[in-house]
Formats: sequence, C-alpha cells, structure tokens
Amino acid sequence: MTGSKQVSLEVIKRLSSYLRDLKTLENNGVTVVSSGSLAELLGISSVQFRKDLSYFGPFGKKGVGYNVCTLTAKLTELLGAGDCMGFALAGAGKLGSAIIQYSSLQRFNIKIMAAFDSDRRKIGKKIDGLVVADAKDMETTVRTMGLKIGVICVPAKAAQQVAERMASAGIIAVLNFAPTEIKILKKVHVSNVDICVEIEALSYFVRQSAT
Amino acid sequence: MTGSKQVSLEVIKRLSSYLRDLKTLENNGVTVVSSGSLAELLGISSVQFRKDLSYFGPFGKKGVGYNVCTLTAKLTELLGAGDCMGFALAGAGKLGSAIIQYSSLQRFNIKIMAAFDSDRRKIGKKIDGLVVADAKDMETTVRTMGLKIGVICVPAKAAQQVAERMASAGIIAVLNFAPTEIKILKKVHVSNVDICVEIEALSYFVRQSAT
Repeated sequence: MTGSKQVSLEVIKRLSSYLRDLKTLENNGVTVVSSGSLAELLGISSVQFRKDLSYFGPFGKKGVGYNVCTLTAKLTELLGAGDCMGFALAGAGKLGSAIIQYSSLQRFNIKIMAAFDSDRRKIGKKIDGLVVADAKDMETTVRTMGLKIGVICVPAKAAQQVAERMASAGIIAVLNFAPTEIKILKKVHVSNVDICVEIEALSYFVRQSAT
Repeated sequence: MTGSKQVSLEVIKRLSSYLRDLKTLENNGVTVVSSGSLAELLGISSVQFRKDLSYFGPFGKKGVGYNVCTLTAKLTELLGAGDCMGFALAGAGKLGSAIIQYSSLQRFNIKIMAAFDSDRRKIGKKIDGLVVADAKDMETTVRTMGLKIGVICVPAKAAQQVAERMASAGIIAVLNFAPTEIKILKKVHVSNVDICVEIEALSYFVRQSAT
C-alpha cells in the first residue's frame, strides 16, 4: 500500500463514502464508470477523487475508466469493510442510546459489542437487546473482548478520562461525541464529532451569505 | 475579513474548537498566551493554528503572544457565536430526539426552533417542550420563522429530498446525519456527519496498527 501510513482520516472517510456510492452503482448494474462521472455522482472534483485513490496505488485505466466491481472490492478490502467491526460505547444517555439503536450500523458490518455507564439508573438497562454494563468494568471487558474502537457519549467533563481509560485497555481508535476535544493520546486515533461545533461552523456561512 | 470567502468548513470548525478552549482559559483567569502553548492545549501544531487565524487578518503580537480576551471576542464575533443560532430539524426518531434534547446546545447559543416528521406516531409528540410538527408544513414554517440552518435525521433514502425542500424554503446550511451524502445543492453548505463512515474510517486505522 503506497504511502498508506500518511493517509489522513479525512481521506479515509471520503473513501468510505466512495465505497457506498460504488455499491449503489454496482447494485444498479453499472460495470464501468469514468472518473468524471464518478466524481459528479460523488459530488467532488475528479482531481480530488484521483488524488484520494492514488495513495493506494494505481486504479482504473486512462481513457477506459474504472471497473466498478474491482474498485468496490479493492476499497472494501482496504477499509476492512468486509469484516465485522465491533466497538465499545461509553455513556448510555440519549445520544448513546440512539447510537446503540442505530439501525444503519448493521448494514455496514458495524456492531456494538458493549455499552457502559456510571449512572446506577442506566446500569442493567436493556437497549435493543444490549445490557448497559457498569463503567467500572469497562477496561476488563474491553480487554477481554479485544475491542479496538471506542465511541464516547459521556458529558464533556468526563470525556478525556474515559478516552484515557479506553486507551489503557487497548482501544486504538476513538469516536468522540462529547462536546469537548480529546487531546494528545499516543497511538490513538481520535475523531471528534461535535454537534455544537458543526452548527456553529454552519452559522458562520449563514452570516457570510447575509453580508 | 481577508479572504474569508475562501475559508473551508474545516477551518471554521477548528476555529469553533479554538473558541471553546479560549473561553476555558479566560474563565481560568489566563490573560496572555503564546501561540505554542495555545497549540499544545488545542492539540494541534502552532503552524496550523496561525494559518487558520491568518485567514481573518492579524492576531497577536510577535514575541508577546495572544491576548486571550481579545482573541475570544474576535472569534466570537467572527463565528457569530454571540447571537442565537436557531435551526430546524427533520426526522424526530431516536437520533433526532437525542439532538432535540441535547443539553449542550443551549450553552453555545444554539436553539432548536422547529422539528418535523412524516410519521403520524411522532407528529404532535412533545420532546423537551417542543412539539413535533407535520413534515408537510416544513417549508411554510421554515420560511415564516426565517430559519437558515437545517439538521437532517431522516432515513438515508429521504435525505436528499428533505435537503432540497429545506433549501427551497430558504435554508442555506445543512447538517446531515442521514447515512448518505447530500449532493449538489447550489448555495447551500452541507456538512455530512455519518456515524457509519466515521467508524469505518477508524477501523482502517485499527487494521493499519495491526499490520
């Protein structure tokens, strides 16, 4: 894999989106597609598309385009999207519960394996068949199950500590929904999804449009 | 504002994160901070920090650092974070309900103004004081209230149409949680937050670490 070590999370997220659209093309019986048509479908520039793919070696043929089936298979392999991806979730409040019950996960081979909370009212609660466990057992369970991905839905003030505890138990990739950034964890990939930051950023563009 | 038209959503999202951390510094009584210390706190490089700020003109003094209070005020003004940001939400399912009840929004002057669903079982339901309205009234309400930001939590297959309806009613910034990308809407900023894509991307890094 050419230079794959340097690939950013943003590129990988775009590849994951490309894979989704390629699967739709495949299901619709499309066999070959040009980089231009693909880019238009994906809502990006064809330069961006070719650049993102180029990290992983040569795909497609000049003047011929991409074989949809081959490209889908390669991206599936690259992203590990054919394997089941299990994750642990901390914080079974409203957002955490919504993620536990998020029906699209299954379609993408993603499975919640364990959920934790420190609130006595939530521990033992069954959400979509999964029993919320006591947060104090998190490290043991994560280690025993060999989980590598953690999703954080705890309040902001608890997020950093939860991330560090997850990391100490072997988690190496964290998706953080707490409205605070998780910082400086060695060898751990952190992706922050902050609903407030997202809306605040969009409101900037709204203000720009008004001027 | 120097070149503000070209600023990407990614830059604005980082500025929104910076603002949050600056407010914490301010509350802790810090008055002046160097770009190096700020970058460390923010978990980014000082080059990145200075580059992000540079889009908006000169901040800070060489060898003196940044006045926390001034920088906070400037970023607040720039992001419009002092004003109340109202938004409309489509899809009052589990994720949508979690967002309606998301307590952190208020702290950032963000307010849900209207929620819509097409499911009869959800229409009329009161969530955190907000009554879910019939999706068929979305355009009229959005237009009447002058809402500019829309949050989409409907199933994937309905997302594109909902986004187009929002745009036709005057929405110019969309935050899409549906597991599909919303594409090609003129003059509308779209931010896609796809939980499946986020986890799939993280699983790539997990696989890389294992090799």
